[in-house]
Amino acid sequence: MFQSFDITADSRDSASRTAALRTAMAAEGVQAFIVPRSDAHMGETVPPSDERLAWLTGFTGSAGTAVITTERAALFVDGRYTLQAAEQADTAVFEIVASQTTAPGAWLAEALGEGVLGYDPWLHAPAEIERLTKALGREPVALGRNPIDALWHDRPPRPAGAAAAHPSTLTGEAAGDKRARLGDGLAKAGADASVLTLPESIAWLLNIRGTDLARSPVVLGFAILRADGQVTLFTEPEKVDGALAAHLGNGVAVAPPDQFEPALRALGESRVLVDRASCPMAVIAALKAGGSKVELGEDPCILPKARKTEAELEGMRAAHRRDGAAVCRFLARLDADLARGGTVTEIDVARRIEAERVATGALMDLSFDTIAGSGPNGAIVHYRVTKASNRTVVPGDVLLVDSGGQYRDGTTDITRTLATGETPADARRAFTLVLKGMIALSTARWPAGLAGRDLDPLARAALWRAGLDYDHGTGHGVGAFLNVHEGPVGLSRRSGTVALAPGMVLSNEPGCYRTGHWGIRIENLLAVTPPDTPAGGDRAMLGFETLTLAPIDRRLIDRALLDPGEVAWLDAYHARVAAEIGPLVAEDAEVAAWLADACAPLG
Amino acid sequence: MFQSFDITADSRDSASRTAALRTAMAAEGVQAFIVPRSDAHMGETVPPSDERLAWLTGFTGSAGTAVITTERAALFVDGRYTLQAAEQADTAVFEIVASQTTAPGAWLAEALGEGVLGYDPWLHAPAEIERLTKALGREPVALGRNPIDALWHDRPPRPAGAAAAHPSTLTGEAAGDKRARLGDGLAKAGADASVLTLPESIAWLLNIRGTDLARSPVVLGFAILRADGQVTLFTEPEKVDGALAAHLGNGVAVAPPDQFEPALRALGESRVLVDRASCPMAVIAALKAGGSKVELGEDPCILPKARKTEAELEGMRAAHRRDGAAVCRFLARLDADLARGGTVTEIDVARRIEAERVATGALMDLSFDTIAGSGPNGAIVHYRVTKASNRTVVPGDVLLVDSGGQYRDGTTDITRTLATGETPADARRAFTLVLKGMIALSTARWPAGLAGRDLDPLARAALWRAGLDYDHGTGHGVGAFLNVHEGPVGLSRRSGTVALAPGMVLSNEPGCYRTGHWGIRIENLLAVTPPDTPAGGDRAMLGFETLTLAPIDRRLIDRALLDPGEVAWLDAYHARVAAEIGPLVAEDAEVAAWLADACAPLG
Repeated sequence: MFQSFDITADSRDSASRTAALRTAMAAEGVQAFIVPRSDAHMGETVPPSDERLAWLTGFTGSAGTAVITTERAALFVDGRYTLQAAEQADTAVFEIVASQTTAPGAWLAEALGEGVLGYDPWLHAPAEIERLTKALGREPVALGRNPIDALWHDRPPRPAGAAAAHPSTLTGEAAGDKRARLGDGLAKAGADASVLTLPESIAWLLNIRGTDLARSPVVLGFAILRADGQVTLFTEPEKVDGALAAHLGNGVAVAPPDQFEPALRALGESRVLVDRASCPMAVIAALKAGGSKVELGEDPCILPKARKTEAELEGMRAAHRRDGAAVCRFLARLDADLARGGTVTEIDVARRIEAERVATGALMDLSFDTIAGSGPNGAIVHYRVTKASNRTVVPGDVLLVDSGGQYRDGTTDITRTLATGETPADARRAFTLVLKGMIALSTARWPAGLAGRDLDPLARAALWRAGLDYDHGTGHGVGAFLNVHEGPVGLSRRSGTVALAPGMVLSNEPGCYRTGHWGIRIENLLAVTPPDTPAGGDRAMLGFETLTLAPIDRRLIDRALLDPGEVAWLDAYHARVAAEIGPLVAEDAEVAAWLADACAPLG
Repeated sequence: MFQSFDITADSRDSASRTAALRTAMAAEGVQAFIVPRSDAHMGETVPPSDERLAWLTGFTGSAGTAVITTERAALFVDGRYTLQAAEQADTAVFEIVASQTTAPGAWLAEALGEGVLGYDPWLHAPAEIERLTKALGREPVALGRNPIDALWHDRPPRPAGAAAAHPSTLTGEAAGDKRARLGDGLAKAGADASVLTLPESIAWLLNIRGTDLARSPVVLGFAILRADGQVTLFTEPEKVDGALAAHLGNGVAVAPPDQFEPALRALGESRVLVDRASCPMAVIAALKAGGSKVELGEDPCILPKARKTEAELEGMRAAHRRDGAAVCRFLARLDADLARGGTVTEIDVARRIEAERVATGALMDLSFDTIAGSGPNGAIVHYRVTKASNRTVVPGDVLLVDSGGQYRDGTTDITRTLATGETPADARRAFTLVLKGMIALSTARWPAGLAGRDLDPLARAALWRAGLDYDHGTGHGVGAFLNVHEGPVGLSRRSGTVALAPGMVLSNEPGCYRTGHWGIRIENLLAVTPPDTPAGGDRAMLGFETLTLAPIDRRLIDRALLDPGEVAWLDAYHARVAAEIGPLVAEDAEVAAWLADACAPLG
């Protein structure tokens, strides 16, 4: 679970690997090949066995695409990764292209001429192939085997981490009931089956969790859900011990991954629903080869998974109390250390907060690599400290810490921005404006039917009035002991039109960044509450319950900028933190005293 | 110009007219016929010669559709008109159908069976025919002539009101320059011409205004704009006197309406842009018959018309000062009258505010029929007082007055909600929450690129927190001495994705309604300001300038609900009203004293 601060991949062999890939492309009769970062499961985390992009280019960021033609090679990354890509990749081999300006399809339309683009059909979904086809004016060609796999001699084995049942006491719904319910839904929609290729969907549906990946407690695999509720799970059988087999029961067959494609063909003349955004083209080809009618729609687990059950919400609350206590211990001890003039680096910060979570005895993993950015490093929105970038906190620095834990009962994600001495006035002003937005969203009520994009402006209005903003979404969906980034809803202009619904869990994390000086972000997780009618109102409204429990640094607040209602919210929040976390840290008098002080009312 | 409080249409002949229409339908070989409210210009206002829906059904509302089959007949109206439709139409002939629940297409799919739907191709645009085709599963059939026109013996003549040049001093851009600019745009988009069928587009492009319609100073007609900037205007030549002909100049030919269709055919093998949402199908058919390639896009005048020039904004400001003075005289004299125990009806309210605007000597027309709703009538959002509904204001009533004027230099639209005695506490609370939303929008700043729908939640957040809301948009676009409702932007969830841009004028009119008790709405017009960076900010933001100048009734404010920033905005607004309107009403000491009092600070 421990976070590494090294960068392990390198690009020494990029030139020879690219040359070998070109030879393989020629043998396949294609003049270009596209190498995405994702594997067949389209997740943020990829096992070492599928780090083809890093093998080829040396680039280890969480998003990117390489494209090789007979003459040229390009690595497409978004704004947060342009510097890292230029450092990690061999720029004599790869042009670094900003993907927000030039998409691979547009670049290929010019670079490829009349040539043919090949792709690995296990690594691309219809939505993306449609985009490439539109950009090129013709369809790319699916290759029978990924040429990289033939060249990659020391390729690590596929992960086969232990998997286990996730109890119904935590999920609130038995896997058999979920299977029956979703099977019914398929039948009503006129489908015979659905192919599940997102491991988080499979983990949710079958109430299982695994250890195949860092940060994401899924079991890598595929599944076929039939309208009668029966499921076949395709994953390495060694992951499934007797206890897990008993949990899965008669309704779930387990088969090795190499039986997945034959099973798709064997569905024969069925109507099969697949997810347009994430289902590999190879799955669709196998279904069609077998005679199935393929319906491009949405994975049927995505929406029900997002709406947490009362048991899942209880688990999330418990995880947030435990995690909040660990965060408070970290904050109290860091403050004490800095007050004593101790030397603390960003790596120290990340190690300390991880150690406090480990000390709870309940941590399964971090939910993502900790972001600990001091002073100017805080202004780099997706900063991950490395041994090379590590910086000692200088008194007066604004220190941004964004971190989270995976616990059996829930997933956390919290950002606190801390004073480490006398803070510049512009940072205190920005912190207070960010806090106003964060409070506006925490206290928002709204009529059912709105999407996250409709609420996003509430978190930004105070910053906008001051000529400030942040270039990221206000929030993302969060899983229950699943991925810390989870669809289908979010709180941003780009988060689509799916309506927010009771039980959905979202982050609320407005920020403000001054390049070269400081970064500020304040993040709590929120759960959407059921509709009810406020006193004096005439219609029911949804709202948010705050899950995260840790003090917000009052030393960074410019009180004159807060309205009375905002002060009242903050004081009530701190009173709740003191009441719920206080008893959990009572064993350490220094931490308890720090907490009481940190939660004192502003007024 | 004077507002009528009678309803003139009636439904005595509906049964015989419907029977005659069915005979005509049979002769045309169709089993159904659709009768929209709009004419070929798709506007809100229709001249008496085109009131086919009222002729057939007796219904005089501003939106509705009738559908006649061989056996059945239905009148589709939205929520605001269901009561009026049931009162006006002969319900023995017409079923009244709520259009928000059942669209005509859905109703026809069931009622029509295998029959054929006929329509008048001059009264329907592609967007609607596409909807009907989808609902029916087959295309409706365009008839050569509207059968109603053959049956309507006492049909009024088409209007031929005088038209006149609208000076460049008011528009800020000469018509020749507009024609050249838009012609260039067509050429760049690869089009040879565009057909303009929206009279407001033609009025804007040619800098002309007319008197064909009530409330809307357009000249009814069609136009063809060519890529070289030349225009042919098809309208009754008697509207164009020598002065107007001189204004139009050599670049604009005028032809009678019966030459429009031949001219469309004569475009031959051209690429012609038409507006998908509003261009009559008959225009498209004529273009295709002549060999043109028709491109369904957007009328090229819509976006530039929405972005007012500095001269138009100056005109809007002048119109709002003049109109604000008239509104203040009305408010002061109404208050005085009610204080003396005078009897005032809703019709009196509408007549008095109209008379104050007439007394400015500059009023060209009302911009829409005044809404004057007292007590329970105020809760009917689109209430128009009639002799039958007219109600005497009872002391303590909440009185809602929504009205506006057309002046040569600008169009106004203002709503004020007034206390007439001791107001119930729930109404004062609701008024204050509405005011909070209205201030939040007035003071909003935002980065370029956002649409009105993104700002709409800012106006509702305070009401939502209290379990309240309003079932209408927050605002609509407003023309400059043109239609008071103007696209392409608005402030509502349904107002599309066109970005707000400097110079656009919008209404800001949140409300709250308690059925059977009161209605509250506060409305100012706003102009979008150019991007600039607020002090201490790091990026440019758009914002709003408030155009409307009249006091907001402080007797209805629950001050405890306002934040200091909101009080500061209101006090500053009132100080500005006093400074700008005070000198204009100084001739009447009573009005001047009333204004000074109404604009005193809250603090």
